[in-house]
Amino acid sequence: MIRYERWIMPDDVIVAKYRIETCLGIEQVAEAIAGEQSSGTFVRIPGETDELKRRARARVAKIEPLDAADCPALPGGRPPGKSGGPARFQRGEITLEFPFDNVGANLPTLLATVCGNLYELSDHSGCKLLDLELPAAFGEKYPGPQFGIPGTRRLAGVADRPILGTIVKPSVGLSPAQTADLVRTLGAAGIDFIKDDELMANPPHSPLDQRVGAVMRAIQELADQSGKKVMYAVNITDDLEAMLRHHDTVLAAGGTCVMVSLHSVGLPALVELRKRSALPIHGHRNGWGMYTRHPLLGVEYTAWQKLWRLAGADHLHVNGLQNKFWEPDDSVVRSIRACLTPMFRPDDTAMPVVSSGQWGGQAPETYRLTGTTDLMYVAGGGILAHPMGPAAGLRALQQAWEAAVQGIDLHAHAQTHPELRATIARFAKPR
Amino acid sequence: MIRYERWIMPDDVIVAKYRIETCLGIEQVAEAIAGEQSSGTFVRIPGETDELKRRARARVAKIEPLDAADCPALPGGRPPGKSGGPARFQRGEITLEFPFDNVGANLPTLLATVCGNLYELSDHSGCKLLDLELPAAFGEKYPGPQFGIPGTRRLAGVADRPILGTIVKPSVGLSPAQTADLVRTLGAAGIDFIKDDELMANPPHSPLDQRVGAVMRAIQELADQSGKKVMYAVNITDDLEAMLRHHDTVLAAGGTCVMVSLHSVGLPALVELRKRSALPIHGHRNGWGMYTRHPLLGVEYTAWQKLWRLAGADHLHVNGLQNKFWEPDDSVVRSIRACLTPMFRPDDTAMPVVSSGQWGGQAPETYRLTGTTDLMYVAGGGILAHPMGPAAGLRALQQAWEAAVQGIDLHAHAQTHPELRATIARFAKPR
Repeated sequence: MIRYERWIMPDDVIVAKYRIETCLGIEQVAEAIAGEQSSGTFVRIPGETDELKRRARARVAKIEPLDAADCPALPGGRPPGKSGGPARFQRGEITLEFPFDNVGANLPTLLATVCGNLYELSDHSGCKLLDLELPAAFGEKYPGPQFGIPGTRRLAGVADRPILGTIVKPSVGLSPAQTADLVRTLGAAGIDFIKDDELMANPPHSPLDQRVGAVMRAIQELADQSGKKVMYAVNITDDLEAMLRHHDTVLAAGGTCVMVSLHSVGLPALVELRKRSALPIHGHRNGWGMYTRHPLLGVEYTAWQKLWRLAGADHLHVNGLQNKFWEPDDSVVRSIRACLTPMFRPDDTAMPVVSSGQWGGQAPETYRLTGTTDLMYVAGGGILAHPMGPAAGLRALQQAWEAAVQGIDLHAHAQTHPELRATIARFAKPR
Repeated sequence: MIRYERWIMPDDVIVAKYRIETCLGIEQVAEAIAGEQSSGTFVRIPGETDELKRRARARVAKIEPLDAADCPALPGGRPPGKSGGPARFQRGEITLEFPFDNVGANLPTLLATVCGNLYELSDHSGCKLLDLELPAAFGEKYPGPQFGIPGTRRLAGVADRPILGTIVKPSVGLSPAQTADLVRTLGAAGIDFIKDDELMANPPHSPLDQRVGAVMRAIQELADQSGKKVMYAVNITDDLEAMLRHHDTVLAAGGTCVMVSLHSVGLPALVELRKRSALPIHGHRNGWGMYTRHPLLGVEYTAWQKLWRLAGADHLHVNGLQNKFWEPDDSVVRSIRACLTPMFRPDDTAMPVVSSGQWGGQAPETYRLTGTTDLMYVAGGGILAHPMGPAAGLRALQQAWEAAVQGIDLHAHAQTHPELRATIARFAKPR
């Protein structure tokens, strides 16, 4: 297995790296962001003494120019002065150091500092937070994942291969009884993990209490027969009080996982859930496209996942290779590696959840590019719409991962494995 | 005063309007989003019956084509099939109706539904949520602003003009005693409102308890002398437990306002604070640039502010005209109007907080374009860096608003008002 390592260990500063674009000069913009996000305002005012600036002002630690463009990436950038000639939009990476004493070990204020007003500055025409390194005080204050990879493996009963899972589909509309029927089918097929869709929380047509009751009865019956207890991530996303109550409902019913939509609940609510939770927290990243789809706006996954791990997420969605969404494979690979890179302790990694358009065909490339089986590998339609039925869909996934880890060509493996053959025939794009 | 009205009153559906861009056909993309965010998955699966689709699937209610472009706004859009000729990227507005029964009156799951995976679809090369209309059940479950405009006016003692305020600057670095000194100066000048910077919460160099103590002693002394109690918005942004404790600290010290960075705390934590709070909640929008700066990604303010008002924000930042940031004036005007448009009750509006590079010169245009004085008008450097001192800076602001409301030309007014004259000389851009 590959081991990933962090890039820097700051002590009394918060290090933030950005990609920016500007027609004004990268140094000037780096200083503007450093000022705006620490001691500055738009004019120099009486209280901003040199002593205070020395102590409180963020420092530009590094500037690395990249390419330049003819058109601005985002609207609203201030044009250059009367320099003559058409403007060029220079890109670059800048590294800023914020005094830890400005913020303290406080995730919400950290967010306001490294991810706040700076997107609105007219000095630039593009700004994206790429990475963060935090002082040890953050690791001391925030406990990080409670279960992480080993705890999840123990509860799911899967030691040394990806945890294979699926999503209850259709996303919405099934009754609790229909959901439990589907769980029975999938559980009988030998699935490790099932999750609610992020659209399915506690709606009138499938109240969470009833769904948990029906699903957990099915899971307990399956466990009584086979000895294997399926891990079901119940989507407890809700207002905080309800979310904590849902957690207790899942726990009391014998459940082994809860899921939240991270952007819907926010960091402080996740911290509260982490305090209360006796179960692994499955972090869904829906809404993430807004943060990441534009190359010069928002936040890179590498920075983002650190915040949610600190707050307590045990599992984090990373999309998947050759996914149904827009994201290129190299970005997915970086996300998987990020989740597996320790922050403050060897065990504060999160389990990457690979999903979106997965059917097993992506297993060899996923393994080749990340070198790990510390994954949840989640297929929705890839299992449920398998031509030979869900049980065959799951077997095809298992076969694909066997081939991936053993270095066997997928098509060769398919010759002796009919479920894999059928899944390739159904889902592979023509070569 | 102008009264603003809402555009539609849905009953059993959640209405969401988007601006999208695609080279595939707007109808097709509208259906893809409607499917992905309700009953669909990437292949048709056994449980997705016609009956379930009829009941649970989102409906495309309206399509309005806009212009087309030669280049995609965002990367990752799927190219069209073999149509021949170069692709054109058609923009349009689409209106979707999500069955209320899919979601229930649940703000976090609403967010996952209207603001979730849809940004990642490769069917489009741009998607922005423009507006939302919600069934009455949301207004019944979520109480909305507790103080709103009338409650804030009562506590600030300002009846019929904008509440004039400032921000403690430098943003970070001042000690509690230095902050209190500044409050004394500003309070003596007659200021209505002072706020912490969003970067200043509970850091080691200015612990919130000590800052609140020092500041509230200064405010009480001022009140004893003048009878006027300055409203001070203490930035209580923190993990939830600490945030609620900070609220209690402010309340016990006689404070009249708390501030939170909305994106840092999230909707559920704001709902919790609203339940506990005996004070108006000042909602800071830092991080907002990520949601809005790109015309085809993220969320428009009109939609965004509805969520935070429902969750309980009494004041909402809207930027300001001719601001120091990138945002054009028409967008700021739309935001002010949005905050002042009732959702479910006449009094569930939020007080718009106009700030960023304000110095009074923008008052006439702000009043002309919005027709309201139901504003907090917040100037940082515009007051503190006034050449005749902060008291003169505040008087200049008062004079600018007098001129604005009475329809007097600002420069004419300045001839008999030296503070206004000095502020124009200091801050106005050469005409």
